[in-house]
Amino acid sequence: MKNADLQSIRSFLVKLAKDAGEILKSHSGKESFQFKQSPIDLVTRIDKLIEKKIFNELKVKYPEFSFIGEETYDKDLTNLGVGPTFIVDPIDGTTNFIHNFPFSCISIGFTINRKPVVGVIYNPHLNLMLHAVKGRGAYLNDEKFPPVSKSHNNLSLQSSLIALEAGSTRSGDAFDKKMATIRNLLDEEKGFIHGSRSFGASTMNLFYVATGQLDAYWDGGCQSWDVCAGWIILEETGGIVVSGIPNKWEVSVDSRVYLFVRGASERDQKQFVIDFWGHVSGDLFY
Amino acid sequence: MKNADLQSIRSFLVKLAKDAGEILKSHSGKESFQFKQSPIDLVTRIDKLIEKKIFNELKVKYPEFSFIGEETYDKDLTNLGVGPTFIVDPIDGTTNFIHNFPFSCISIGFTINRKPVVGVIYNPHLNLMLHAVKGRGAYLNDEKFPPVSKSHNNLSLQSSLIALEAGSTRSGDAFDKKMATIRNLLDEEKGFIHGSRSFGASTMNLFYVATGQLDAYWDGGCQSWDVCAGWIILEETGGIVVSGIPNKWEVSVDSRVYLFVRGASERDQKQFVIDFWGHVSGDLFY
Repeated sequence: MKNADLQSIRSFLVKLAKDAGEILKSHSGKESFQFKQSPIDLVTRIDKLIEKKIFNELKVKYPEFSFIGEETYDKDLTNLGVGPTFIVDPIDGTTNFIHNFPFSCISIGFTINRKPVVGVIYNPHLNLMLHAVKGRGAYLNDEKFPPVSKSHNNLSLQSSLIALEAGSTRSGDAFDKKMATIRNLLDEEKGFIHGSRSFGASTMNLFYVATGQLDAYWDGGCQSWDVCAGWIILEETGGIVVSGIPNKWEVSVDSRVYLFVRGASERDQKQFVIDFWGHVSGDLFY
Repeated sequence: MKNADLQSIRSFLVKLAKDAGEILKSHSGKESFQFKQSPIDLVTRIDKLIEKKIFNELKVKYPEFSFIGEETYDKDLTNLGVGPTFIVDPIDGTTNFIHNFPFSCISIGFTINRKPVVGVIYNPHLNLMLHAVKGRGAYLNDEKFPPVSKSHNNLSLQSSLIALEAGSTRSGDAFDKKMATIRNLLDEEKGFIHGSRSFGASTMNLFYVATGQLDAYWDGGCQSWDVCAGWIILEETGGIVVSGIPNKWEVSVDSRVYLFVRGASERDQKQFVIDFWGHVSGDLFY
Protein backbone atom coordinates (compact mmCIF):
# COMPACT_ATOMS: atom_id res chain seq x y z
CA MET A 1 0.00 0.00 0.00
CA LYS A 2 1.31 3.46 -0.88
CA ASN A 3 2.18 5.88 1.88
CA ALA A 4 -0.34 8.35 0.45
CA ASP A 5 -3.04 5.74 1.02
CA LEU A 6 -1.93 5.28 4.61
CA GLN A 7 -2.11 9.03 5.14
CA SER A 8 -5.61 9.06 3.71
CA ILE A 9 -6.57 6.25 6.12
CA ARG A 10 -5.06 8.22 8.98
CA SER A 11 -7.18 11.28 8.11
CA PHE A 12 -10.30 9.15 8.07
CA LEU A 13 -9.43 7.53 11.42
CA VAL A 14 -8.75 10.92 13.03
CA LYS A 15 -12.24 12.05 12.09
CA LEU A 16 -13.77 8.79 13.33
CA ALA A 17 -11.89 9.05 16.63
CA LYS A 18 -12.91 12.67 17.10
CA ASP A 19 -16.60 11.87 16.60
CA ALA A 20 -16.43 8.78 18.80
CA GLY A 21 -14.56 10.79 21.45
CA GLU A 22 -17.45 13.20 21.78
CA ILE A 23 -19.74 10.28 22.58
CA LEU A 24 -17.23 8.89 25.07
CA LYS A 25 -16.84 12.23 26.84
CA SER A 26 -20.56 12.94 27.05
CA HIS A 27 -21.19 9.60 28.78
CA SER A 28 -18.10 9.49 31.00
CA GLY A 29 -19.02 8.73 34.62
CA LYS A 30 -22.69 8.27 33.79
CA GLU A 31 -22.91 4.60 32.81
CA SER A 32 -23.64 1.45 34.69
CA PHE A 33 -21.50 -1.53 33.78
CA GLN A 34 -21.60 -5.26 33.25
CA PHE A 35 -18.90 -7.80 33.95
CA LYS A 36 -17.05 -9.55 31.16
CA GLN A 37 -14.66 -12.30 32.20
CA SER A 38 -14.37 -11.31 35.85
CA PRO A 39 -15.98 -8.89 38.35
CA ILE A 40 -13.45 -6.20 37.43
CA ASP A 41 -13.30 -6.71 33.67
CA LEU A 42 -15.96 -4.11 32.96
CA VAL A 43 -17.91 -3.10 29.88
CA THR A 44 -20.70 -0.60 29.26
CA ARG A 45 -23.25 -0.15 26.50
CA ILE A 46 -21.16 2.81 25.30
CA ASP A 47 -18.14 0.57 24.53
CA LYS A 48 -20.43 -1.48 22.29
CA LEU A 49 -22.16 1.56 20.77
CA ILE A 50 -18.86 3.24 19.85
CA GLU A 51 -17.40 0.04 18.40
CA LYS A 52 -20.50 -0.51 16.28
CA LYS A 53 -20.37 3.06 14.97
CA ILE A 54 -16.67 2.79 14.05
CA PHE A 55 -17.19 -0.66 12.49
CA ASN A 56 -20.10 0.57 10.36
CA GLU A 57 -18.22 3.59 9.06
CA LEU A 58 -15.09 1.60 8.26
CA LYS A 59 -17.17 -1.07 6.52
CA VAL A 60 -18.64 1.50 4.14
CA LYS A 61 -15.35 3.26 3.41
CA TYR A 62 -13.02 0.22 3.36
CA PRO A 63 -15.25 -2.81 2.72
CA GLU A 64 -12.32 -5.02 1.72
CA PHE A 65 -10.34 -4.63 4.96
CA SER A 66 -10.60 -6.79 8.06
CA PHE A 67 -11.77 -5.55 11.45
CA ILE A 68 -10.88 -6.61 15.00
CA GLY A 69 -12.66 -4.85 17.85
CA GLU A 70 -12.51 -5.44 21.59
CA GLU A 71 -16.24 -5.86 22.03
CA THR A 72 -16.87 -8.15 19.04
CA TYR A 73 -13.68 -10.19 19.31
CA ASP A 74 -14.07 -13.93 19.50
CA LYS A 75 -10.86 -15.74 20.30
CA ASP A 76 -11.99 -18.87 18.51
CA LEU A 77 -12.87 -17.00 15.32
CA THR A 78 -10.84 -13.84 15.10
CA ASN A 79 -7.17 -14.08 14.22
CA LEU A 80 -5.03 -11.21 13.07
CA GLY A 81 -4.15 -11.99 9.47
CA VAL A 82 -1.62 -10.58 7.01
CA GLY A 83 -4.17 -8.46 5.14
CA PRO A 84 -5.02 -4.85 5.94
CA THR A 85 -6.78 -4.86 9.33
CA PHE A 86 -8.29 -2.21 11.58
CA ILE A 87 -7.81 -2.94 15.28
CA VAL A 88 -10.13 -0.93 17.49
CA ASP A 89 -10.55 -0.32 21.18
CA PRO A 90 -13.72 1.75 21.43
CA ILE A 91 -12.84 2.78 25.00
CA ASP A 92 -9.36 2.09 26.27
CA GLY A 93 -9.63 2.51 30.04
CA THR A 94 -13.24 1.45 30.50
CA THR A 95 -12.82 1.45 34.28
CA ASN A 96 -11.58 5.05 34.08
CA PHE A 97 -14.58 5.85 31.86
CA ILE A 98 -16.98 4.38 34.43
CA HIS A 99 -15.36 6.46 37.19
CA ASN A 100 -15.09 9.59 35.01
CA PHE A 101 -11.33 9.50 35.66
CA PRO A 102 -10.30 11.51 32.59
CA PHE A 103 -7.80 9.06 31.10
CA SER A 104 -10.01 7.03 28.75
CA CYS A 105 -9.34 7.09 25.01
CA ILE A 106 -10.53 5.98 21.59
CA SER A 107 -7.81 3.83 20.01
CA ILE A 108 -7.75 2.82 16.33
CA GLY A 109 -4.80 1.04 14.78
CA PHE A 110 -4.24 -0.34 11.30
CA THR A 111 -1.95 -3.24 10.43
CA ILE A 112 -0.51 -4.70 7.24
CA ASN A 113 1.32 -8.00 7.42
CA ARG A 114 0.42 -7.97 11.12
CA LYS A 115 2.53 -4.84 11.74
CA PRO A 116 1.02 -1.53 12.94
CA VAL A 117 1.38 1.12 10.22
CA VAL A 118 -1.25 3.70 11.21
CA GLY A 119 -2.32 4.66 14.73
CA VAL A 120 -4.79 7.16 16.13
CA ILE A 121 -5.48 7.76 19.83
CA TYR A 122 -7.88 10.39 21.09
CA ASN A 123 -8.40 11.48 24.69
CA PRO A 124 -11.42 13.81 24.55
CA HIS A 125 -11.10 14.85 28.23
CA LEU A 126 -7.65 16.40 27.79
CA ASN A 127 -8.17 17.04 24.06
CA LEU A 128 -5.14 14.97 23.06
CA MET A 129 -5.30 13.72 19.46
CA LEU A 130 -2.28 11.61 18.62
CA HIS A 131 -1.61 10.03 15.28
CA ALA A 132 1.15 8.48 13.24
CA VAL A 133 1.77 6.86 9.87
CA LYS A 134 4.75 4.56 9.43
CA GLY A 135 7.77 6.57 8.29
CA ARG A 136 6.00 9.91 8.64
CA GLY A 137 6.49 10.81 12.30
CA ALA A 138 4.02 11.17 15.14
CA TYR A 139 1.68 14.11 15.67
CA LEU A 140 -0.03 15.59 18.70
CA ASN A 141 -2.98 17.83 17.82
CA ASP A 142 -1.55 18.21 14.30
CA GLU A 143 1.87 19.34 15.46
CA LYS A 144 4.78 17.00 14.95
CA PHE A 145 5.95 15.59 18.30
CA PRO A 146 8.97 17.45 19.57
CA PRO A 147 12.04 15.23 19.75
CA VAL A 148 12.58 13.65 23.14
CA SER A 149 14.21 16.31 25.35
CA LYS A 150 18.02 16.31 25.54
CA SER A 151 18.05 16.03 29.31
CA HIS A 152 16.27 12.73 28.93
CA ASN A 153 18.84 11.18 26.68
CA ASN A 154 20.55 9.23 29.41
CA LEU A 155 18.12 6.36 29.53
CA SER A 156 19.00 3.95 32.32
CA LEU A 157 16.94 1.60 34.42
CA GLN A 158 17.80 3.06 37.81
CA SER A 159 16.90 6.61 36.82
CA SER A 160 13.73 5.65 35.00
CA LEU A 161 10.06 6.38 35.46
CA ILE A 162 8.01 3.38 34.30
CA ALA A 163 4.30 2.77 33.77
CA LEU A 164 3.30 -0.45 35.55
CA GLU A 165 -0.24 -1.76 35.85
CA ALA A 166 -1.79 -4.33 38.17
CA GLY A 167 -4.31 -5.13 35.44
CA SER A 168 -7.48 -7.14 35.79
CA THR A 169 -6.04 -10.65 36.35
CA ARG A 170 -5.85 -10.65 40.14
CA SER A 171 -5.18 -14.20 41.12
CA GLY A 172 -2.98 -17.14 40.29
CA ASP A 173 0.42 -17.41 38.76
CA ALA A 174 0.17 -14.44 36.35
CA PHE A 175 -0.83 -12.07 39.18
CA ASP A 176 1.92 -13.39 41.48
CA LYS A 177 4.59 -12.91 38.84
CA LYS A 178 3.38 -9.47 37.89
CA MET A 179 3.38 -8.24 41.47
CA ALA A 180 6.80 -9.81 42.06
CA THR A 181 8.18 -8.05 38.98
CA ILE A 182 6.78 -4.69 40.07
CA ARG A 183 8.33 -5.18 43.49
CA ASN A 184 11.70 -6.18 42.01
CA LEU A 185 11.78 -3.01 39.94
CA LEU A 186 11.03 -0.79 42.94
CA ASP A 187 13.16 -2.55 45.57
CA GLU A 188 16.24 -0.64 46.78
CA GLU A 189 18.30 -3.85 46.56
CA LYS A 190 17.19 -4.61 42.99
CA GLY A 191 15.93 -2.33 40.20
CA PHE A 192 15.43 0.72 42.44
CA ILE A 193 13.84 2.73 39.63
CA HIS A 194 12.89 6.38 40.16
CA GLY A 195 9.25 5.42 40.26
CA SER A 196 6.23 3.64 38.84
CA ARG A 197 3.18 5.42 37.48
CA SER A 198 -0.22 4.07 36.51
CA PHE A 199 -3.09 5.51 34.46
CA GLY A 200 -5.04 2.29 34.04
CA ALA A 201 -5.05 2.80 30.26
CA SER A 202 -2.40 1.47 27.86
CA THR A 203 -3.02 4.36 25.48
CA MET A 204 -2.16 6.96 28.13
CA ASN A 205 0.92 5.05 29.27
CA LEU A 206 2.08 4.74 25.66
CA PHE A 207 1.43 8.41 25.02
CA TYR A 208 3.77 9.48 27.81
CA VAL A 209 6.44 7.00 26.69
CA ALA A 210 6.15 8.44 23.17
CA THR A 211 6.69 11.97 24.50
CA GLY A 212 9.62 10.73 26.62
CA GLN A 213 7.93 11.87 29.83
CA LEU A 214 7.85 8.25 30.91
CA ASP A 215 10.81 6.03 30.07
CA ALA A 216 9.00 2.75 29.58
CA TYR A 217 5.78 0.81 29.95
CA TRP A 218 5.71 -2.88 30.80
CA ASP A 219 2.54 -4.94 30.82
CA GLY A 220 1.16 -8.43 30.52
CA GLY A 221 -2.39 -9.39 29.68
CA CYS A 222 -3.02 -6.64 27.12
CA GLN A 223 -4.68 -7.36 23.81
CA SER A 224 -3.82 -6.10 20.33
CA TRP A 225 -6.45 -3.31 20.55
CA ASP A 226 -4.83 -1.94 23.70
CA VAL A 227 -1.46 -1.43 22.06
CA CYS A 228 -1.78 -1.36 18.26
CA ALA A 229 -2.30 2.39 17.74
CA GLY A 230 0.14 3.42 20.49
CA TRP A 231 2.75 1.02 19.11
CA ILE A 232 3.22 2.83 15.79
CA ILE A 233 2.98 6.26 17.48
CA LEU A 234 5.80 5.21 19.82
CA GLU A 235 7.93 3.76 17.01
CA GLU A 236 7.57 6.99 15.05
CA THR A 237 9.11 8.90 18.00
CA GLY A 238 12.12 6.58 18.10
CA GLY A 239 10.78 4.21 20.72
CA ILE A 240 10.99 0.43 20.53
CA VAL A 241 8.80 -2.54 21.44
CA VAL A 242 10.15 -5.87 22.69
CA SER A 243 8.61 -8.71 24.63
CA GLY A 244 7.90 -8.25 28.32
CA ILE A 245 9.25 -11.78 28.74
CA PRO A 246 13.07 -11.93 28.98
CA ASN A 247 15.20 -12.55 25.89
CA LYS A 248 12.50 -12.13 23.26
CA TRP A 249 13.51 -9.21 21.08
CA GLU A 250 10.90 -9.94 18.41
CA VAL A 251 7.31 -9.41 19.42
CA SER A 252 4.00 -9.27 17.60
CA VAL A 253 1.05 -6.98 18.20
CA ASP A 254 -1.00 -9.83 19.66
CA SER A 255 1.68 -11.36 21.88
CA ARG A 256 0.06 -10.00 25.12
CA VAL A 257 3.26 -9.24 27.08
CA TYR A 258 5.25 -6.16 26.06
CA LEU A 259 7.98 -3.77 27.08
CA PHE A 260 7.78 -0.36 25.40
CA VAL A 261 10.85 1.88 25.65
CA ARG A 262 11.13 5.55 24.75
CA GLY A 263 13.38 7.06 22.11
CA ALA A 264 17.09 7.08 23.02
CA SER A 265 20.32 5.77 21.51
CA GLU A 266 20.12 2.18 20.28
CA ARG A 267 22.82 1.23 22.75
CA ASP A 268 20.97 2.77 25.74
CA GLN A 269 17.70 1.17 24.66
CA LYS A 270 19.31 -2.26 24.38
CA GLN A 271 21.01 -1.97 27.76
CA PHE A 272 17.76 -0.75 29.34
CA VAL A 273 15.87 -3.76 27.99
CA ILE A 274 18.50 -6.21 29.25
CA ASP A 275 18.57 -4.57 32.69
CA PHE A 276 14.78 -4.52 32.83
CA TRP A 277 14.46 -8.20 31.88
CA GLY A 278 16.77 -9.03 34.78
CA HIS A 279 13.90 -8.14 37.12
CA VAL A 280 11.06 -9.95 35.38
CA SER A 281 9.85 -12.80 37.56
CA GLY A 282 9.69 -15.90 35.33
CA ASP A 283 7.66 -16.24 32.17
CA LEU A 284 4.34 -14.44 32.09
CA PHE A 285 1.65 -16.26 30.18
CA TYR A 286 -1.83 -14.95 29.49
CA MET B 1 -9.07 34.74 62.31
CA LYS B 2 -12.03 36.05 60.28
CA ASN B 3 -13.13 34.22 57.16
CA ALA B 4 -12.55 37.41 55.17
CA ASP B 5 -8.90 37.30 56.25
CA LEU B 6 -8.62 33.69 55.12
CA GLN B 7 -10.05 34.65 51.75
CA SER B 8 -7.53 37.42 51.46
CA ILE B 9 -4.75 34.94 52.27
CA ARG B 10 -6.13 32.59 49.63
CA SER B 11 -6.01 35.33 46.98
CA PHE B 12 -2.41 36.07 47.87
CA LEU B 13 -1.46 32.38 47.75
CA VAL B 14 -3.16 31.91 44.37
CA LYS B 15 -0.99 34.70 42.94
CA LEU B 16 2.15 33.26 44.55
CA ALA B 17 1.37 29.78 43.20
CA LYS B 18 0.68 31.12 39.71
CA ASP B 19 4.01 32.97 39.58
CA ALA B 20 5.91 30.02 41.04
CA GLY B 21 4.16 27.68 38.60
CA GLU B 22 5.58 29.58 35.64
CA ILE B 23 9.08 28.99 36.98
CA LEU B 24 8.30 25.31 37.57
CA LYS B 25 6.94 24.85 34.06
CA SER B 26 9.80 26.63 32.32
CA HIS B 27 12.36 24.36 34.01
CA SER B 28 10.42 21.08 33.85
CA GLY B 29 12.58 18.30 32.41
CA LYS B 30 15.65 20.53 32.16
CA GLU B 31 17.25 20.16 35.57
CA SER B 32 19.88 17.88 36.99
CA PHE B 33 19.21 16.62 40.50
CA GLN B 34 20.88 15.82 43.78
CA PHE B 35 20.00 13.12 46.27
CA LYS B 36 18.45 13.96 49.62
CA GLN B 37 18.04 11.06 52.02
CA SER B 38 18.36 8.28 49.47
CA PRO B 39 19.28 7.81 45.78
CA ILE B 40 15.65 8.31 44.76
CA ASP B 41 14.71 11.13 47.11
CA LEU B 42 15.51 13.83 44.58
CA VAL B 43 15.82 17.58 44.75
CA THR B 44 16.82 20.25 42.22
CA ARG B 45 17.97 23.85 42.53
CA ILE B 46 14.49 24.86 41.32
CA ASP B 47 12.79 23.32 44.39
CA LYS B 48 15.02 25.51 46.53
CA LEU B 49 14.64 28.61 44.34
CA ILE B 50 10.82 28.40 44.36
CA GLU B 51 10.67 27.81 48.11
CA LYS B 52 12.95 30.79 48.75
CA LYS B 53 10.80 33.01 46.54
CA ILE B 54 7.57 31.97 48.26
CA PHE B 55 9.15 32.29 51.71
CA ASN B 56 10.43 35.80 50.97
CA GLU B 57 7.10 37.04 49.68
CA LEU B 58 5.16 35.55 52.60
CA LYS B 59 7.66 37.02 55.07
CA VAL B 60 7.02 40.53 53.74
CA LYS B 61 3.24 40.18 53.60
CA TYR B 62 2.68 38.11 56.76
CA PRO B 63 5.79 38.62 58.94
CA GLU B 64 4.07 37.34 62.07
CA PHE B 65 3.11 33.90 60.67
CA SER B 66 5.22 30.75 60.81
CA PHE B 67 6.58 28.94 57.77
CA ILE B 68 7.32 25.28 57.08
CA GLY B 69 8.80 24.37 53.72
CA GLU B 70 10.01 21.06 52.36
CA GLU B 71 13.47 22.27 51.43
CA THR B 72 14.21 24.23 54.64
CA TYR B 73 12.55 21.84 57.06
CA ASP B 74 14.68 20.57 59.91
CA LYS B 75 13.05 17.80 61.90
CA ASP B 76 14.96 18.74 65.04
CA LEU B 77 13.95 22.39 64.86
CA THR B 78 10.68 22.72 62.96
CA ASN B 79 7.47 21.64 64.63
CA LEU B 80 4.02 22.54 63.47
CA GLY B 81 2.62 24.83 66.18
CA VAL B 82 -0.85 26.13 66.97
CA GLY B 83 -0.19 29.59 65.47
CA PRO B 84 -0.96 30.55 61.86
CA THR B 85 1.48 28.60 59.67
CA PHE B 86 2.15 28.38 55.96
CA ILE B 87 3.12 24.89 54.83
CA VAL B 88 4.76 24.85 51.42
CA ASP B 89 5.86 22.24 48.93
CA PRO B 90 7.64 24.22 46.22
CA ILE B 91 7.44 21.24 43.84
CA ASP B 92 5.18 18.35 44.74
CA GLY B 93 6.27 15.56 42.43
CA THR B 94 9.93 16.48 42.04
CA THR B 95 10.65 13.20 40.26
CA ASN B 96 7.89 14.03 37.77
CA PHE B 97 9.41 17.52 37.38
CA ILE B 98 12.83 16.01 36.61
CA HIS B 99 11.28 13.73 33.99
CA ASN B 100 8.97 16.45 32.61
CA PHE B 101 6.06 14.14 33.42
CA PRO B 102 3.38 16.84 33.60
CA PHE B 103 2.01 16.08 37.06
CA SER B 104 4.15 18.32 39.28
CA CYS B 105 2.51 21.10 41.29
CA ILE B 106 3.05 24.06 43.59
CA SER B 107 1.32 23.34 46.91
CA ILE B 108 0.70 25.97 49.61
CA GLY B 109 -1.38 25.25 52.69
CA PHE B 110 -2.19 27.36 55.71
CA THR B 111 -3.02 26.01 59.17
CA ILE B 112 -4.46 27.46 62.36
CA ASN B 113 -4.41 25.32 65.50
CA ARG B 114 -2.62 22.75 63.35
CA LYS B 115 -5.68 22.34 61.08
CA PRO B 116 -5.59 23.19 57.34
CA VAL B 117 -7.89 26.16 56.65
CA VAL B 118 -6.60 27.45 53.29
CA GLY B 119 -5.16 25.38 50.44
CA VAL B 120 -3.85 26.24 46.99
CA ILE B 121 -2.52 23.74 44.43
CA TYR B 122 -1.36 24.74 40.98
CA ASN B 123 -0.43 22.42 38.14
CA PRO B 124 1.00 24.73 35.45
CA HIS B 125 1.29 21.94 32.85
CA LEU B 126 -2.45 21.23 32.79
CA ASN B 127 -3.38 24.73 33.99
CA LEU B 128 -5.24 23.43 37.03
CA MET B 129 -5.54 26.01 39.81
CA LEU B 130 -7.32 24.58 42.82
CA HIS B 131 -8.10 26.46 45.97
CA ALA B 132 -10.27 26.30 49.05
CA VAL B 133 -10.99 28.21 52.24
CA LYS B 134 -12.56 26.42 55.19
CA GLY B 135 -16.35 26.64 54.99
CA ARG B 136 -16.30 28.30 51.58
CA GLY B 137 -16.10 25.39 49.13
CA ALA B 138 -13.40 24.34 46.70
CA TYR B 139 -12.65 26.00 43.38
CA LEU B 140 -11.05 24.83 40.16
CA ASN B 141 -9.86 27.70 37.94
CA ASP B 142 -12.23 30.04 39.81
CA GLU B 143 -15.28 27.88 39.28
CA LYS B 144 -16.82 26.14 42.25
CA PHE B 145 -16.19 22.39 42.07
CA PRO B 146 -19.24 20.57 40.77
CA PRO B 147 -20.73 18.23 43.35
CA VAL B 148 -19.51 14.66 43.07
CA SER B 149 -21.47 13.03 40.25
CA LYS B 150 -24.63 11.11 41.21
CA SER B 151 -23.47 7.94 39.56
CA HIS B 152 -20.54 7.91 41.95
CA ASN B 153 -22.60 8.04 45.08
CA ASN B 154 -22.35 4.35 45.79
CA LEU B 155 -18.96 4.40 47.37
CA SER B 156 -17.78 0.89 48.19
CA LEU B 157 -14.36 -0.67 48.48
CA GLN B 158 -14.81 -3.35 45.81
CA SER B 159 -15.98 -0.91 43.16
CA SER B 160 -13.38 1.73 43.97
CA LEU B 161 -10.50 3.31 42.09
CA ILE B 162 -7.73 4.18 44.55
CA ALA B 163 -4.48 6.13 44.27
CA LEU B 164 -1.65 4.03 45.72
CA GLU B 165 2.03 4.98 45.63
CA ALA B 166 5.16 2.92 46.14
CA GLY B 167 6.88 6.07 47.46
CA SER B 168 10.59 6.55 48.04
CA THR B 169 11.15 4.23 51.01
CA ARG B 170 12.06 1.04 49.16
CA SER B 171 13.45 -1.30 51.78
CA GLY B 172 12.72 -2.62 55.22
CA ASP B 173 9.55 -3.04 57.16
CA ALA B 174 7.72 0.04 55.87
CA PHE B 175 8.25 -0.99 52.23
CA ASP B 176 7.21 -4.59 52.93
CA LYS B 177 4.00 -3.51 54.64
CA LYS B 178 3.15 -0.99 51.94
CA MET B 179 3.60 -3.51 49.14
CA ALA B 180 1.61 -6.12 51.09
CA THR B 181 -1.24 -3.64 51.59
CA ILE B 182 -1.31 -2.73 47.90
CA ARG B 183 -1.42 -6.41 47.02
CA ASN B 184 -4.19 -7.10 49.54
CA LEU B 185 -6.32 -4.36 48.01
CA LEU B 186 -5.87 -5.72 44.47
CA ASP B 187 -6.11 -9.45 45.19
CA GLU B 188 -9.24 -11.22 43.90
CA GLU B 189 -9.53 -13.10 47.20
CA LYS B 190 -9.26 -9.93 49.31
CA GLY B 191 -10.04 -6.28 48.49
CA PHE B 192 -10.42 -6.83 44.73
CA ILE B 193 -10.81 -3.10 44.06
CA HIS B 194 -11.56 -1.84 40.54
CA GLY B 195 -8.03 -0.57 40.24
CA SER B 196 -5.07 1.39 41.54
CA ARG B 197 -3.72 4.54 39.93
CA SER B 198 -0.51 6.44 40.56
CA PHE B 199 0.64 9.94 39.62
CA GLY B 200 3.66 10.06 41.90
CA ALA B 201 2.36 13.33 43.37
CA SER B 202 0.08 13.61 46.41
CA THR B 203 -1.40 16.83 45.07
CA MET B 204 -2.60 15.16 41.87
CA ASN B 205 -3.97 12.14 43.72
CA LEU B 206 -5.83 14.44 46.12
CA PHE B 207 -7.16 16.53 43.26
CA TYR B 208 -8.83 13.53 41.65
CA VAL B 209 -10.24 12.36 45.00
CA ALA B 210 -11.66 15.87 45.51
CA THR B 211 -13.37 15.73 42.11
CA GLY B 212 -14.68 12.23 42.87
CA GLN B 213 -12.87 10.78 39.84
CA LEU B 214 -10.82 8.68 42.23
CA ASP B 215 -12.50 7.24 45.32
CA ALA B 216 -9.60 7.35 47.74
CA TYR B 217 -5.89 7.88 48.22
CA TRP B 218 -3.88 5.96 50.79
CA ASP B 219 -0.26 6.70 51.55
CA GLY B 220 2.43 6.40 54.19
CA GLY B 221 5.63 8.40 54.38
CA CYS B 222 4.16 11.72 53.25
CA GLN B 223 4.96 14.94 55.03
CA SER B 224 2.67 17.83 55.99
CA TRP B 225 3.64 19.82 52.86
CA ASP B 226 2.54 16.95 50.61
CA VAL B 227 -0.99 16.91 51.97
CA CYS B 228 -1.84 20.20 53.74
CA ALA B 229 -3.28 22.13 50.78
CA GLY B 230 -5.03 19.12 49.26
CA TRP B 231 -6.50 18.22 52.65
CA ILE B 232 -8.68 21.34 52.96
CA ILE B 233 -9.57 21.23 49.25
CA LEU B 234 -10.80 17.65 49.72
CA GLU B 235 -12.72 18.47 52.93
CA GLU B 236 -14.46 21.34 51.16
CA THR B 237 -15.81 18.87 48.56
CA GLY B 238 -17.24 16.60 51.27
CA GLY B 239 -14.26 14.27 51.49
CA ILE B 240 -12.75 13.02 54.75
CA VAL B 241 -9.27 12.28 56.09
CA VAL B 242 -8.52 9.49 58.56
CA SER B 243 -5.36 7.65 59.46
CA GLY B 244 -3.93 5.12 57.03
CA ILE B 245 -3.31 2.95 60.09
CA PRO B 246 -6.37 0.92 61.18
CA ASN B 247 -8.74 2.25 63.85
CA LYS B 248 -7.43 5.78 64.06
CA TRP B 249 -10.22 8.11 63.05
CA GLU B 250 -8.45 11.24 64.25
CA VAL B 251 -5.40 12.26 62.29
CA SER B 252 -3.19 15.35 62.16
CA VAL B 253 -1.61 17.00 59.16
CA ASP B 254 1.85 15.78 60.17
CA SER B 255 0.94 12.21 61.05
CA ARG B 256 2.56 10.77 57.88
CA VAL B 257 0.08 7.95 57.15
CA TYR B 258 -3.31 8.90 55.73
CA LEU B 259 -6.43 7.63 54.03
CA PHE B 260 -8.31 10.27 52.04
CA VAL B 261 -11.86 9.41 50.95
CA ARG B 262 -14.06 11.27 48.48
CA GLY B 263 -17.39 12.89 49.20
CA ALA B 264 -20.25 10.43 49.78
CA SER B 265 -22.77 9.73 52.52
CA GLU B 266 -21.29 9.61 56.02
CA ARG B 267 -22.42 6.01 56.31
CA ASP B 268 -20.74 4.96 53.04
CA GLN B 269 -17.55 6.81 53.96
CA LYS B 270 -17.40 5.12 57.36
CA GLN B 271 -17.99 1.65 55.90
CA PHE B 272 -15.40 2.28 53.20
CA VAL B 273 -12.78 3.23 55.79
CA ILE B 274 -13.50 0.15 57.91
CA ASP B 275 -13.36 -2.13 54.85
CA PHE B 276 -10.15 -0.47 53.66
CA TRP B 277 -8.44 -0.80 57.05
CA GLY B 278 -9.18 -4.52 56.93
CA HIS B 279 -6.53 -4.82 54.21
CA VAL B 280 -3.77 -2.69 55.78
CA SER B 281 -0.84 -4.89 56.67
CA GLY B 282 0.10 -4.06 60.27
CA ASP B 283 1.10 -0.65 61.58
CA LEU B 284 3.01 1.57 59.20
CA PHE B 285 5.58 3.77 60.89
CA TYR B 286 7.69 6.40 59.21
